[in-house]
Amino acid sequence: MDYAKLLEKRDDTHPLYVQLKEALTGAIGSGDLPTGTRLPSERELARELGLSRTTVANAYRELESLGLIRSHVGRGTFVCAVPEPGDAPFAWRGKVAWRVESLGGKLSLRHLMNGNRSERFISFADGSPAFECFPLEDYRRAVTQTLKHHARLALGPAPTEGQPLLRRAIANRFVTKPEKILILSGSQQGIDLIARCLIDRGDSIVIDRPGYVGAIQTFRAAGAKVVGWDVVRADLGELEDLILRHRPKLIYTNPTFQNPTGRTMSLRERQELLKLAARYRMPVIEDDPWRDTYLDSPPPLSLYHLDVHNIVIHLGTFSKVLAPGLRLGWLAGSEYIIDQLASIKQHENLFNEGLTQIVIADFLQSGLFDSHLENLRREHAKKRDAVRRAAAEHLPERACVLNNPQGGMHFWCRLTKGVDARHLLDAAVRKGVAFAPGELFYADEAGGRQELRLCFSSVPTDLIEEGIKRLRGAFDTCNSKPSKYNSHTPLV
Amino acid sequence: MDYAKLLEKRDDTHPLYVQLKEALTGAIGSGDLPTGTRLPSERELARELGLSRTTVANAYRELESLGLIRSHVGRGTFVCAVPEPGDAPFAWRGKVAWRVESLGGKLSLRHLMNGNRSERFISFADGSPAFECFPLEDYRRAVTQTLKHHARLALGPAPTEGQPLLRRAIANRFVTKPEKILILSGSQQGIDLIARCLIDRGDSIVIDRPGYVGAIQTFRAAGAKVVGWDVVRADLGELEDLILRHRPKLIYTNPTFQNPTGRTMSLRERQELLKLAARYRMPVIEDDPWRDTYLDSPPPLSLYHLDVHNIVIHLGTFSKVLAPGLRLGWLAGSEYIIDQLASIKQHENLFNEGLTQIVIADFLQSGLFDSHLENLRREHAKKRDAVRRAAAEHLPERACVLNNPQGGMHFWCRLTKGVDARHLLDAAVRKGVAFAPGELFYADEAGGRQELRLCFSSVPTDLIEEGIKRLRGAFDTCNSKPSKYNSHTPLV
Repeated sequence: MDYAKLLEKRDDTHPLYVQLKEALTGAIGSGDLPTGTRLPSERELARELGLSRTTVANAYRELESLGLIRSHVGRGTFVCAVPEPGDAPFAWRGKVAWRVESLGGKLSLRHLMNGNRSERFISFADGSPAFECFPLEDYRRAVTQTLKHHARLALGPAPTEGQPLLRRAIANRFVTKPEKILILSGSQQGIDLIARCLIDRGDSIVIDRPGYVGAIQTFRAAGAKVVGWDVVRADLGELEDLILRHRPKLIYTNPTFQNPTGRTMSLRERQELLKLAARYRMPVIEDDPWRDTYLDSPPPLSLYHLDVHNIVIHLGTFSKVLAPGLRLGWLAGSEYIIDQLASIKQHENLFNEGLTQIVIADFLQSGLFDSHLENLRREHAKKRDAVRRAAAEHLPERACVLNNPQGGMHFWCRLTKGVDARHLLDAAVRKGVAFAPGELFYADEAGGRQELRLCFSSVPTDLIEEGIKRLRGAFDTCNSKPSKYNSHTPLV
Repeated sequence: MDYAKLLEKRDDTHPLYVQLKEALTGAIGSGDLPTGTRLPSERELARELGLSRTTVANAYRELESLGLIRSHVGRGTFVCAVPEPGDAPFAWRGKVAWRVESLGGKLSLRHLMNGNRSERFISFADGSPAFECFPLEDYRRAVTQTLKHHARLALGPAPTEGQPLLRRAIANRFVTKPEKILILSGSQQGIDLIARCLIDRGDSIVIDRPGYVGAIQTFRAAGAKVVGWDVVRADLGELEDLILRHRPKLIYTNPTFQNPTGRTMSLRERQELLKLAARYRMPVIEDDPWRDTYLDSPPPLSLYHLDVHNIVIHLGTFSKVLAPGLRLGWLAGSEYIIDQLASIKQHENLFNEGLTQIVIADFLQSGLFDSHLENLRREHAKKRDAVRRAAAEHLPERACVLNNPQGGMHFWCRLTKGVDARHLLDAAVRKGVAFAPGELFYADEAGGRQELRLCFSSVPTDLIEEGIKRLRGAFDTCNSKPSKYNSHTPLV
């Protein structure tokens, strides 16, 4: 080991002792300094590298605190890290619980989201709100103010149920009591807590078909038998049949700008659904992430607000209206269920990140949130229209029929010429564009091969046409037979 | 309803339409404006309140978007919220899964943390690091810079495994590969993921006795039978007996500055433990939150770094060295297990909050983190000494024997005069001081009635003596027989 080379590349921004520590850590990690190596004394190394002895001493102390080296008085300082074993694979697979091993198979949300992220890639799969609308300046100001005036609140421990400030602000806006609000790290956490709280292995549940893949997977992981209710027909007689046949523990539904079909239940349908639920004493999980993203006119009242039996748990989120990276959602439910869910929540997350909670409470109270929503709706409507125009112009006639989204962030598209959505996706990814294939939204293996979801919200406006053109290229590859006429009749 | 009174209290900071919206929301929520009420027209209300018509129109539009009012052309605008049902309790209890209902009983971490938080209350129960050491200015600067230069990264969707930036920074410091790091919202999430991944209902596990209450509760909630291994004796023959008798799925241990006993396993003990684990093919969960909080000299190498069989999962956290409100922890393990844990993680939390991850990566790389640790250790050592001094001076002789913590954040105390820790806690809370009673750390019902944990890190230095005096008052109430001599021999 040539110690003189350790600090060949110095920079001006980091303290020298840190740079030295990093360099030594790297040499230990890479095996250049194997376990047992005697390091030069502080004085020797300082001379060799032209550093002060204190600098070397500080670096050695840090390394010792990491357990990487050890000084023995009178004998010197030795490397004591054990290198990573590369060739001793412990049989972890045999240790994994049955329900984890039983999950595999289908595409997972994680892989969809972690997919290709090169600069030039265009993803219609990502259901994030338009980033360009995020009120970055206001946010930065609010963060700075919070760290100035409420640092202890933001950085200290907090109640599992959430910062009282934020619970109040949400309750005020959603018109319920703060005690009925539980703060979450996104509505996905809410679904997970509900599954853990209400599902015993073998229970059946009814869920939208097609429906949100994250919910399907989470309920299934909890051991539930997932029964699909055709959410496009939304036939309440059929729902009653399913209830009688499967005796489900709960129904999970997204009644407003449904993901993926875009359908919104009418007020009448909502009332009928609640009647059924009450008659069969069946909790209703209302996942309502799109309520504030309407593009034309506001949706009907939530199931939560129509409910007179305390039978509804309502899920809301800031991921779909501010930014997903905030990791902030909430749910509303009876006080008994909030307490039960908080009991379970403490096992996975004692409480939520503090700074964001306080900043968002401030956004809600100051009106910044509502004025942001107006911008967002305007921008999303523009993007929706741009996708529709580009699809009409470029996509092959009748081969891909788009619905007419009135809220939410996506088109739901039917492939009519025998093109398989999964094959189309393979071809599309090669062309540099992605979407969510329909089968992701079906709990059973049968559905969705002829459907796909196109999110319009997160693609920059100036890339939309290019993205749709690439998609056209994928259609061509898949040997559909394009002609020059288009027909994009809404599905719903 | 007297509309003129709606905006009696106006403020200057919020837009008027927001204030009006809030006032109307409140009136609807309180029942002053019941469902079906016809609201004044925009023009009428604007005149009544001396506002522009646009202001009223904006407020009405917001309320309509919330589903609270509905306009019908030619007929007017009506309140359509349904008031909260107060008197229709749905039988949620009957819907809750067996394992949730089977949890109750013991004190929970949540209730301990959410406890009395009045200004004058002194809590030796809160195991947070000294808040006064938090590098607030540096943190604020890093947050501002991140929002300036990496807003998309901080606010957008991210990989379930964590921001690559942060995984790299942690791997570099901990000397392992980034692919072996999984970012968590605190090590509690790691324990939960491990339990969900590895535990089938009915499995046994071995866990420190006494040990971390959050782990005991989480493994138990996953259906595990929890077998305690006496961590003070740390007899490896006894551990082998337990393994042979219970065939545990894994061992969970906190080998360094153990919570609550403060004990640190020697290098030899670590090696023996790993040999046993390898012989019986039993994964080792090394919970290591205190490694960087040593007060005198650095602890021995981690089990993770001593392991040559890839058998160890190592849990780390920033909650105990920066601030709990950041909600950031991590674990290191084999790539196979990281992938399995990430699969489960996506059900409860698709990814972690973004801003904090990038800021902490910056802290790690710039050396700010290491220099903060130095401050923190110095401050914690001062506080430890202050508690020891105050205890020697004020606590009743021989009634409360303190250990000698060399890292971590707490004293572990033995009550020797028949005082029951739970009774003492009741008396203490009445005097305005709290600690963690010993029984919280025992999986079985038998232990800990004569033990308690006193955290020294988070109590402001100038309140430490007052806190210990209050504790003395609690002893007096409990009828221990104090004399003027003290003896605080270490337990370990």
